[in-house]
Amino acid sequence: MGSIVVPRLIERKRDGHPLNPGEWHQLIQAYVAGDVPDYQMSAMAMAVVFQGLEPDELNELVEAMLCSGDRLDLSGIARPRVDKHSIGGVGDKTSLLLAPMLACCGVAVPMISGRGLGHTGGTLDKLESIAGFRTRLSLKEATAQLGTLGVVMLGQAPELVPADRMLYALRDVTGTVASLPLISSSIMSKKLAEDLNGLVLDIKTGSGAFLTDPVQSLELARTMIGIGEARGCRTVGLLTAMDRPLGYACGNALEVVESIAGLRGAGPADLMEVTLALGIEMLLLAGQETDRASARGRLEETIANGAALALFTTMVEAQGGDPRMIVEPERLPRAPVVVEYLAPGDGAIRQIEPRTIGYGVIDLGGGRRVTTDTIDPAVGFVITAKPGQQVRTGETLATIHARTEAGALAGRQVLDHAIVIGAQAPVPPLISHRVDRDGVTRIP
Amino acid sequence: MGSIVVPRLIERKRDGHPLNPGEWHQLIQAYVAGDVPDYQMSAMAMAVVFQGLEPDELNELVEAMLCSGDRLDLSGIARPRVDKHSIGGVGDKTSLLLAPMLACCGVAVPMISGRGLGHTGGTLDKLESIAGFRTRLSLKEATAQLGTLGVVMLGQAPELVPADRMLYALRDVTGTVASLPLISSSIMSKKLAEDLNGLVLDIKTGSGAFLTDPVQSLELARTMIGIGEARGCRTVGLLTAMDRPLGYACGNALEVVESIAGLRGAGPADLMEVTLALGIEMLLLAGQETDRASARGRLEETIANGAALALFTTMVEAQGGDPRMIVEPERLPRAPVVVEYLAPGDGAIRQIEPRTIGYGVIDLGGGRRVTTDTIDPAVGFVITAKPGQQVRTGETLATIHARTEAGALAGRQVLDHAIVIGAQAPVPPLISHRVDRDGVTRIP
Repeated sequence: MGSIVVPRLIERKRDGHPLNPGEWHQLIQAYVAGDVPDYQMSAMAMAVVFQGLEPDELNELVEAMLCSGDRLDLSGIARPRVDKHSIGGVGDKTSLLLAPMLACCGVAVPMISGRGLGHTGGTLDKLESIAGFRTRLSLKEATAQLGTLGVVMLGQAPELVPADRMLYALRDVTGTVASLPLISSSIMSKKLAEDLNGLVLDIKTGSGAFLTDPVQSLELARTMIGIGEARGCRTVGLLTAMDRPLGYACGNALEVVESIAGLRGAGPADLMEVTLALGIEMLLLAGQETDRASARGRLEETIANGAALALFTTMVEAQGGDPRMIVEPERLPRAPVVVEYLAPGDGAIRQIEPRTIGYGVIDLGGGRRVTTDTIDPAVGFVITAKPGQQVRTGETLATIHARTEAGALAGRQVLDHAIVIGAQAPVPPLISHRVDRDGVTRIP
Repeated sequence: MGSIVVPRLIERKRDGHPLNPGEWHQLIQAYVAGDVPDYQMSAMAMAVVFQGLEPDELNELVEAMLCSGDRLDLSGIARPRVDKHSIGGVGDKTSLLLAPMLACCGVAVPMISGRGLGHTGGTLDKLESIAGFRTRLSLKEATAQLGTLGVVMLGQAPELVPADRMLYALRDVTGTVASLPLISSSIMSKKLAEDLNGLVLDIKTGSGAFLTDPVQSLELARTMIGIGEARGCRTVGLLTAMDRPLGYACGNALEVVESIAGLRGAGPADLMEVTLALGIEMLLLAGQETDRASARGRLEETIANGAALALFTTMVEAQGGDPRMIVEPERLPRAPVVVEYLAPGDGAIRQIEPRTIGYGVIDLGGGRRVTTDTIDPAVGFVITAKPGQQVRTGETLATIHARTEAGALAGRQVLDHAIVIGAQAPVPPLISHRVDRDGVTRIP
């Protein structure tokens, strides 16, 4: 294995040939060391956008990215380690429910999450609407808390997978995000750095997902499962609907409120169905249960007996957050202007477009346009209407939570665009496919 | 025309859409100003490698590159201005003959040339084997000499098309050279900055050309002609064979010696045929002749009466070179070790591979591996054998000109690989197609 000549590697990839064993490793190592300039890496990334990566290349790239920094070492933790990762949605607060629920079932959940990206929300932003909550933990702190509570929710530590942080920042400004192998390796290198036994992927599909084409969603699931399984991490994916928001609430504090309701047994049906489906897969991967029915029962029990909510509260307190905000959610940041949004006509809800809603939350101040923006945690929408539902003129479909009257007016226009009323149309299933190393199963 | 957001432009090109009018201009302007980083430009270049450019985009890119710096202003020169450009060959010294020949016919030839690139030789490197010859002239000096002598041969001044210099350096190290629109815009922006009335393109084709596929060569010719004609520069291309070296000599001083021989009427037949064919097109574009037969006669006359050689000598002296090296070519740098290369068997010459020969010259020290290498002007090959020729074992096919005995040995191995003897095989025509704005003509 000689030393690499980067332009020749780029040319080979450009011409559709795989790199040789060891070359991705050397390339990533040299890139992190500052010996390969950004302008070569971005050209290589664009070549990968067009030519893809072969499975061996992809595995080597993930391995190389993992090797670029520190990892969690959870060998001292007796519990099985299982996490869940979602490919960006609107109204998706399942992480906030699943982390404590699974920990109550004897699973260790080392959940490293991200911030809002594009039109989608981020778990870290939601958690930070709880006053004092710290998402910046050292790997040592995270490991310690995982040992005591079985659950920790944090942001990506700078020493974890620095190659991904560098590459992602570069891809973000060079039009090279849209690549299945690059998306897969970015996500999986971060997840595998959590030292997991199992990983459940929530692959969003539909108009509000990053990948709107279910064929691509399945391909992404298969690619990520291949990476996980190749490294001894059992990986399962569910394809879930993102042609409408999940649950009612869209906006950071509003979603925490809804998560607390869910942990109290009062969550929206669709949110709870997806949460339980993902939780069942996590429990099975952890080996804590062997059949779905008992797994479901055990998860529901963590809600019914209050254990999950209690653990969530404990975790919030352990990470510096104000536990009173969990016990009394009305203490969470609240928007001064709350107005109802009424159905402008009779008919069936044909569409509630998540992308429009997601960008609408950003417009209200609840997300970032540039990374340095600060977030208004209180604003957003609570959309109680669901696609397929018959509505009558003047019926309440949603509430708009805004900082100002002007914001509320803008929010109304967002919903005018996002919510389409008309003739009844078929509603895609909430969970359509299950994918694991053995293949794809359609969910009946 | 708003301000550009570079990642969105890259994404649009990546997805196969053209940029809007004005956007290429703004992009190039911002790049030259340092406001667009290399890593975005290289990703854009790679997207162009895959998606190409539409004709309007290409014209705008050329215009934007031209606008990035100074140009020659030859409005004070009464003669028609015509140049020739070759797309890289081995043994191609036609520029050294054509520049003085055309100037003797009343044409102004402002010839801005390049250095060796890949396996091909460069006119500047050849000229610099003449002691003292200056290829770095200011635009003012070049214009003045063009006025007095009608001919000047120089390197690209730094103030000329800086966008191309920046882009080319970037493309060279990011695997983004191989793109017809990027190659075309690079060449044509430099040539159009010469303020020409006409341009003749020598499009090399065959195994030793940058483009080995004649379909691609024709496409390149058409693209460049489109650019030239769109800006009022009459442009004609000839497709010439580069499946074997042109002439006998390959190596810098050796090629100057052969050029002088050509100007004395003693050049190899293939070299003179291509030189005359290109010269005829140049004379016709200049409007100095209206039919090929008289154009040919006039060019041959510049050799027969010694005018072209005299003007070449004058030009060398004007640019600081030692004119005695032209009058007595044996004064040019000579290699200490000169050995003959004999036919290893009986048969027909099936192949003399230019790429192997070109890299062989570099191996002998006659070219650069990295841009900072210095060149040994004396070394190279003089291959008198030609494809199709019948040879017998022990017959002299070539001489090897090396710095050391070890070099000569290495040169022998190069020729062992490059020259293939076997059964008679058809030899491609020396000049196969003529392309102009009206279309492609096969040369009979």
